[in-house]
Amino acid sequence: MILKIISSTMKTVYTATCLKMKDDRKFRLIPGTLIALGISYSTVAAKSLTIDKFMADTVTDSQTLKSRPEDMKTIMELMIMNIQAEFCRALEKEEPKVKFIVDRWVRPEGGGGVTCVMQEGEVFEKAGVNVSVVHGNLPPRAIDQMRARGKNFKGGQILPFFAAGVSAVIHPRNPYVPTIHFNYRYFEVTLPDNTIEWWFGGGTDLTPYYLNEEDAIHFHRSLKNACDQHDKAYYPRFKRWCDDYFNIPHRGERRGVGGIFFDDLDTPSTFSFVKSCAEAVIPSYLPLVQKHKNDLYNDKEREWQLLRRGRYVEFNLIYDRGTKFGLYTPGARYESILMSLPLSANWKYMHNPDPDSREGKLTEVLKNPKDWIKIE
Amino acid sequence: MILKIISSTMKTVYTATCLKMKDDRKFRLIPGTLIALGISYSTVAAKSLTIDKFMADTVTDSQTLKSRPEDMKTIMELMIMNIQAEFCRALEKEEPKVKFIVDRWVRPEGGGGVTCVMQEGEVFEKAGVNVSVVHGNLPPRAIDQMRARGKNFKGGQILPFFAAGVSAVIHPRNPYVPTIHFNYRYFEVTLPDNTIEWWFGGGTDLTPYYLNEEDAIHFHRSLKNACDQHDKAYYPRFKRWCDDYFNIPHRGERRGVGGIFFDDLDTPSTFSFVKSCAEAVIPSYLPLVQKHKNDLYNDKEREWQLLRRGRYVEFNLIYDRGTKFGLYTPGARYESILMSLPLSANWKYMHNPDPDSREGKLTEVLKNPKDWIKIE
Repeated sequence: MILKIISSTMKTVYTATCLKMKDDRKFRLIPGTLIALGISYSTVAAKSLTIDKFMADTVTDSQTLKSRPEDMKTIMELMIMNIQAEFCRALEKEEPKVKFIVDRWVRPEGGGGVTCVMQEGEVFEKAGVNVSVVHGNLPPRAIDQMRARGKNFKGGQILPFFAAGVSAVIHPRNPYVPTIHFNYRYFEVTLPDNTIEWWFGGGTDLTPYYLNEEDAIHFHRSLKNACDQHDKAYYPRFKRWCDDYFNIPHRGERRGVGGIFFDDLDTPSTFSFVKSCAEAVIPSYLPLVQKHKNDLYNDKEREWQLLRRGRYVEFNLIYDRGTKFGLYTPGARYESILMSLPLSANWKYMHNPDPDSREGKLTEVLKNPKDWIKIE
Repeated sequence: MILKIISSTMKTVYTATCLKMKDDRKFRLIPGTLIALGISYSTVAAKSLTIDKFMADTVTDSQTLKSRPEDMKTIMELMIMNIQAEFCRALEKEEPKVKFIVDRWVRPEGGGGVTCVMQEGEVFEKAGVNVSVVHGNLPPRAIDQMRARGKNFKGGQILPFFAAGVSAVIHPRNPYVPTIHFNYRYFEVTLPDNTIEWWFGGGTDLTPYYLNEEDAIHFHRSLKNACDQHDKAYYPRFKRWCDDYFNIPHRGERRGVGGIFFDDLDTPSTFSFVKSCAEAVIPSYLPLVQKHKNDLYNDKEREWQLLRRGRYVEFNLIYDRGTKFGLYTPGARYESILMSLPLSANWKYMHNPDPDSREGKLTEVLKNPKDWIKIE
């Protein structure tokens, strides 16, 4: 059922040249550049995209993409393919032992994706960067997961949908390098009266194993910069949303030191904001990899990292709506959805670190999220 | 919040002497023995229970137990405390390095439990045997998990409940010793009109890492023997139910080679049946531990075991209704609920064993469950 192509063969350069939103707000064309003429006049895309640098061919065939250059479906697919390629190349530069394997897959029910995975590297124990561009009909169970996001569709109906997103989870080997996760996505759902509801969602969050306040501040500062370009209210709102979302209620702990998280955003300038966030991933994270990838660590620190990875698995499998949405969507590619799970995770009964230990200090911050920008 | 007592101090001998079901079906008293005078005249309990052999004091205080010897709440609590003690002692006999630690805990909202855990042993990597006897009020979210079991209560209401159960998951170190899980439980829910709905549920299932047909047949034969004492229709029905329940739909695999699983059983002789099943655990499983605990194995076999444990975690955290019911019940002791998770589990992207390998042969059986008794 799954077509696997491990090379990129399409060498033509395709440039998205014009953007037009679903609800007929107009955007002005500048060659090689997209500027949104929305309420906020935000910059939408700063440069043209050369698809021969993508990790694989686009999911949608080039003819279709060319036939609808103004469509957000096209704009978003090209943006996320580009983010995937840039992030994968940046990670590969830090990794001496292995490269990403690239799986381009087709979803029989419509669309497909490009999954890039690096496993058992020297720096990266498991790194997955996934693009998916899927369409078809959504069953009620998957719609329920969307409804929880604030969208309220009539119950029990099957609705046509389109979804395009990039998501990544990077689990480094060294316990001093944090795990990062990000996901940026665009949705369209066709309602029974044929109107289209569309929105964006996403976020980036950091999961350290040992707390380094300087790193947490750098990370949050990078995300705040991306937010502030668009709306000064975004960072505080989406930082709180992130703390609320990446929560493990049964343990009374957050998954990590947070970041930003948002959903149901549908203003004319949202694409531009999402793009800024996606472009902030590399500067927010790569310096932390470079800084800590050669830090010395011992078995006890490695053991603590594996226990924390157990918590990561708990969040992803019990609470994460993205995982549930994925697994409940027919024809879902579970290998791409579960690529977020670490190579290895441990569980010990009643493992409670001493509050004064470094493990205890991290736990304290997970129980009581901090305002990292204020600390700075 | 949690009271921890690591010894058993109550030395009096308490014998359950008479059984009377909630709906006024009568049972005849025989000293030291309980015989159900239900439709099938089944034996309910064959011997008196000496509580000084329990792993800890009963959850319910002895005064309360003595004040209601005929109540199924008492009968069930004594039965499961006894099963816990017998199973823990049997496992300890096979384990030279570590003993069970015993946590007796109190649930602030009502009731409590006794959690016995053995970790990082030579034979048992992680073994948990838990008794819980809890009561209070059930929130709608937890009731939803019950409704999925076939019980249909009015939506959105908080209902008084009582639940007593024993559950265990044993993860041995040697990949040739299978993992076993069992759970036997009794529920009472008080409906708005003050009538009490009660029922039993439970099951025992086996998860091997390498397929040994002889072991699978022995295991299923032991369960069938326990079932056949009560109703010849039980084994085939509950074997199928087990295959259906311990299913990982996104992978198209069962968790293991099955066993039995049932729910919503409420005939007069159900306690007697449940007791037979619980007593069949040791003879079904211990011979497999003894037979394989010293088998030689290599790193590749250990690696496969850890990947299969990843699947075990997927089932427990994504699909298992018991886990969800537990985590959604207020004051739930998550350490006891998540004690089922292995010490260590791995995930590799796209790990698909060669169909002709021994790993592939196990996978084939997980995809297409066998009728083990017929094979015999």
